[in-house]
Amino acid sequence: MNPDISRERENASFNLEILTNILDGGAEKTRRRREIESLVISDPDFQHEDLNFLSRSERYDAAVRKSAQMILKLREYGISDPEEIYSYKSVAKGVYQEPFGVHYVMFIPTLNSQCTTEQRKKWIPLAESFHILGTYAQTELGHGTHIRALETTATYDPSTQEFVLNSPTISSIKWWPGGLGKTSNHAIVLAQLYTQGKCHGLHAFITPIRSMKTHMPLPGVVVGDIGPKFGFDEVDNGYLKLENVRIPRENMLMKYAKVEPDGTYVKPPSDKLTYGTMVFIRSMIVGESARALSKSCTIAIRYSAVRHQSELRPGEPEPQILDYQTQQYKLFPLLATAYAFHFVGQYMSKTYHRISGDINQGDFSELPELHALSAGLKAFTTWATNAGIEVCRMSCGGHGYSRCSSLPDIYVTFTPTCTYEGENTVMMLQTARYLVKSYKQARAGQQLTGIVSYLNEPQNRIQPHSVSSRPTVVSINDLASLLEAYKFRALKLVEMAAKNLQAELQHSKSNEDAWNNSSIDLVRASDAHCHYVVVKLFAAKLSEIGDTAVHSVLSTLALLYALHGVAQNTGDFLQAGLLSVPQLTQISQRLKDLLSELRPNAVALVDAFDYRDEMLGSVLGRYDGNVYEHMFEWAKRSPLNHTEVHESYHKYLKPLQSKL
Amino acid sequence: MNPDISRERENASFNLEILTNILDGGAEKTRRRREIESLVISDPDFQHEDLNFLSRSERYDAAVRKSAQMILKLREYGISDPEEIYSYKSVAKGVYQEPFGVHYVMFIPTLNSQCTTEQRKKWIPLAESFHILGTYAQTELGHGTHIRALETTATYDPSTQEFVLNSPTISSIKWWPGGLGKTSNHAIVLAQLYTQGKCHGLHAFITPIRSMKTHMPLPGVVVGDIGPKFGFDEVDNGYLKLENVRIPRENMLMKYAKVEPDGTYVKPPSDKLTYGTMVFIRSMIVGESARALSKSCTIAIRYSAVRHQSELRPGEPEPQILDYQTQQYKLFPLLATAYAFHFVGQYMSKTYHRISGDINQGDFSELPELHALSAGLKAFTTWATNAGIEVCRMSCGGHGYSRCSSLPDIYVTFTPTCTYEGENTVMMLQTARYLVKSYKQARAGQQLTGIVSYLNEPQNRIQPHSVSSRPTVVSINDLASLLEAYKFRALKLVEMAAKNLQAELQHSKSNEDAWNNSSIDLVRASDAHCHYVVVKLFAAKLSEIGDTAVHSVLSTLALLYALHGVAQNTGDFLQAGLLSVPQLTQISQRLKDLLSELRPNAVALVDAFDYRDEMLGSVLGRYDGNVYEHMFEWAKRSPLNHTEVHESYHKYLKPLQSKL
Repeated sequence: MNPDISRERENASFNLEILTNILDGGAEKTRRRREIESLVISDPDFQHEDLNFLSRSERYDAAVRKSAQMILKLREYGISDPEEIYSYKSVAKGVYQEPFGVHYVMFIPTLNSQCTTEQRKKWIPLAESFHILGTYAQTELGHGTHIRALETTATYDPSTQEFVLNSPTISSIKWWPGGLGKTSNHAIVLAQLYTQGKCHGLHAFITPIRSMKTHMPLPGVVVGDIGPKFGFDEVDNGYLKLENVRIPRENMLMKYAKVEPDGTYVKPPSDKLTYGTMVFIRSMIVGESARALSKSCTIAIRYSAVRHQSELRPGEPEPQILDYQTQQYKLFPLLATAYAFHFVGQYMSKTYHRISGDINQGDFSELPELHALSAGLKAFTTWATNAGIEVCRMSCGGHGYSRCSSLPDIYVTFTPTCTYEGENTVMMLQTARYLVKSYKQARAGQQLTGIVSYLNEPQNRIQPHSVSSRPTVVSINDLASLLEAYKFRALKLVEMAAKNLQAELQHSKSNEDAWNNSSIDLVRASDAHCHYVVVKLFAAKLSEIGDTAVHSVLSTLALLYALHGVAQNTGDFLQAGLLSVPQLTQISQRLKDLLSELRPNAVALVDAFDYRDEMLGSVLGRYDGNVYEHMFEWAKRSPLNHTEVHESYHKYLKPLQSKL
Repeated sequence: MNPDISRERENASFNLEILTNILDGGAEKTRRRREIESLVISDPDFQHEDLNFLSRSERYDAAVRKSAQMILKLREYGISDPEEIYSYKSVAKGVYQEPFGVHYVMFIPTLNSQCTTEQRKKWIPLAESFHILGTYAQTELGHGTHIRALETTATYDPSTQEFVLNSPTISSIKWWPGGLGKTSNHAIVLAQLYTQGKCHGLHAFITPIRSMKTHMPLPGVVVGDIGPKFGFDEVDNGYLKLENVRIPRENMLMKYAKVEPDGTYVKPPSDKLTYGTMVFIRSMIVGESARALSKSCTIAIRYSAVRHQSELRPGEPEPQILDYQTQQYKLFPLLATAYAFHFVGQYMSKTYHRISGDINQGDFSELPELHALSAGLKAFTTWATNAGIEVCRMSCGGHGYSRCSSLPDIYVTFTPTCTYEGENTVMMLQTARYLVKSYKQARAGQQLTGIVSYLNEPQNRIQPHSVSSRPTVVSINDLASLLEAYKFRALKLVEMAAKNLQAELQHSKSNEDAWNNSSIDLVRASDAHCHYVVVKLFAAKLSEIGDTAVHSVLSTLALLYALHGVAQNTGDFLQAGLLSVPQLTQISQRLKDLLSELRPNAVALVDAFDYRDEMLGSVLGRYDGNVYEHMFEWAKRSPLNHTEVHESYHKYLKPLQSKL
């Protein structure tokens, strides 16, 4: 054990295990999680070479092998609880992805939710035994966010009782679905349904794309890998071009909409029914943000504790990087953010499960709020995390660029969350639509409930005041007071956006133009709303914590999170009259004090996330802090070192030298 | 040609060629640059497969081949002017790197500046004929920024008149030098010089590491590749462990310091002499920022002009993404930044050349200012560009993640500039040191010259005022007025940092602690200083432009750059009393107006950067806008598509299915 990092652990002011239990949601959950993680870590079948040393084809190969192993082992161990499966896979996969991801996350859930009873009987056993490997083919080369514009067609032919699927243009080629390129033999294809000469919009069709015997593409199917990406090397995101592919009528998912044998179209009873999965996935992404950021912080803070650099006092040894104020200022607010997002993720997951119970009972009343919240928080947390991972990486100096740090892989694996499952700006605007609607209802005298109820606050509370003429609203040392400030900032920005939108409507050609011309303000309002929600949920979590020492350190983190957010957005708070100019200096000073307060607990706070070395996959983030010897060992395994002299020397360098 | 993008070009309000000439520094320079670029583009030897389809070893192989070809062709064409070589290589390399980079940028320049006349005679011809391939080995596994702490030793043995080089610890292994792993046969090794029992600090030693006949590592030399990184796959950044490696006394670079045959150490006359190269490289990085950001903007803006998505008006066709206000708000400020940085880069390059003339005449008077400026601007421009590239990438939706967009490669190739040649936070603090020193001189009544002369402005101008009690300083439509505001903001923040530092000195253990405890404020002051310089140089450039239409569009860009910066930092401007709260609303509105004003010229403004498709290497950024058909063509070439059925199916999937 590196002595620097041992000393850090001795200095912690709180009991690590208590905090870990809080993060896991209870001591028993911690115990079971660790038990499952140990299963993988002690399993020789999961020992493997760093994927970074492999070519893309080898990486794909290794990922398929691992996926197949995971399936068999999960059955062998009888692990079937979704949370436990998640734990198992997190360790087994490390920072990498599985080509079967979409099979689990989209293909089977869609079958479950959109099949008729008969269809379920046929397809689910095939999917669960992996004879059918499926993907979900929605996005097209030219169409992402706006799914109504998708071009793929499914035309019903009553003479054979088949649908004929076609990709009529280049831009209609299905593009991006994970596992589509090489792995899947079936796809749920989203296509415009035509029957009896009329288009009925998007519907889902189970489409065989490869032979279940030979795995060769079926006639009329052009399928392949979309080529290398920024990350996800081991996944075969694919393309699919359909040329008069015929499938039986029964392959349309018909739980809701139907096509009768004669071609008669039967409408679905409600359009809210497919809403749920999307909300679920977005809610889960909030938790993914917390995980990616907490892993990055673990690596950066541990390495900053063992890395020595530069000179604070002449003649003395180089200090730990973690003692530099600028380093603390980079990392500790991110650490606070990781905790904040973890608690927000817990809240989203709990809320989703509560509300889906209601939905199953036919009660959709809370869905719009959760929909708006999950959209905005998905964007808010992924943007912050995306930038935060890179700050962590760059805080590690040159070695943050090495793949052995794992930080490049964490980044490229995480960054797509800003785009998939709803592009972030679009998400922010969806939330804004809900906020503006709620704001109007509040102004019309309606009493709002739930998280937007603050929009009922009296309007005059937030009129901008000349700062000197009124007492300061915020007490910068008090989380409750800061939370009030975040609330009024959100209210102010929602109000401004709503008013600007109203003003635009006066002289715009259409509602849509007015909306577009207000969209910067609308995004800003959503951002402030989400920021308020995060501070609120962090503060709420504190009230649940009994242990004094843990409560104390988490309170410091919460205050840092809130105050740092104020410092990053001082204009908003000044503009809303929530802050006075002299307070800015106090905030700067208080932030520095909070950094110093957290310093002795920094390593313990990342240890509490409890990532095993095998899950971090990072030489810089090793628990034992023995970084440099392991970097050297890792580098020696680089494929370029398999020979002492690379063949290019004989091919190009020697001939060049002889010519000059 | 895609009709959308043609229409964009027809709508431009200015003559493209005039702007391109301004960017190049004159019509003749544009002509010659294009001539050189055509040489590469028409050369069949430079047609090659996308490196993204190759394994790392294959990429390295391709890069060595290309480097060797470039050397021969440059000689064949008689291109020897450094700027022309730069143009040639930019096209030939595309977004990739050459393993010989350090040979040109560090090895030969160091020989030139630090060799005695005799040493030059021996080494330069060998280096220029590539019989010696060199690298510059400074950074060690455990030591980056603070070079005085390097551990490699060179101990003089008078009995054989040799230096004995050693890597005494794991952390002393040389790590990161480009081309060290497999390509170079010599390295300039920075090591602590020991002679006659005394350490004389760091000196440079030409160290043979591989046989010039067989390219095998020499005895005592452990050399290899440091393994895969975030980008730079085609470069063999290396490690070097030296075990009692003996080199002749004459291999120490002895232009300044010397070791006599008997071991007597002779001091160098001045320590300023090695300053220049560093300043030069940092100045050049400012230009690299401009190039990376302008390439990213070109790709994102062209693609946004041909990409249609979502619905502005129900029933109407999907609009161009570029018509969305949120998209404009992401991209146009970055476009303005790319122009700003381009002009700053021009200034830095011109200033460097002027000052190096002075230095050659023994006049070092302007070097400290240039040193401080290049450090801060290197950090300021690379941070902004680093974040900006990712905004561009994510503004392209899912396809920004595809390697065919080139944006991932631009990012991973650029991001190391935030760390190498001086880590950015360290750079900002170097600039701050100069600012604080200058501020103190100004307060002591000294009249400052050059770019820091604003620190002489009367102190009472920037006392914080109650916003309501004094007239507003800034006229938000006037660039000159905004420039004044940036100046006073910088002055205010330098003053605050200096005062905080002074206050810390009262109760800190040491100057160094006081400095560390003020470092957040110091970085903030540097940032404001650099921001002011950028606005100033952009404004200065405008005054040189005669053409009315070009002047007009660049003025809009400059105003957008300045005003967007104010909007991002409103707290600073409010705090300094330079802005009033009601003005914030006006700024938001004015920013939207500027986005609309720029909209018709957006494509023309990126066209003016004049990047040939071959230099962008981006399907999304194609000049002709024909994106989707070329994406499909590119994807089909993916190595995973070389077979219809991947071998992993037979190895893992079929066996899995048979077990379930």
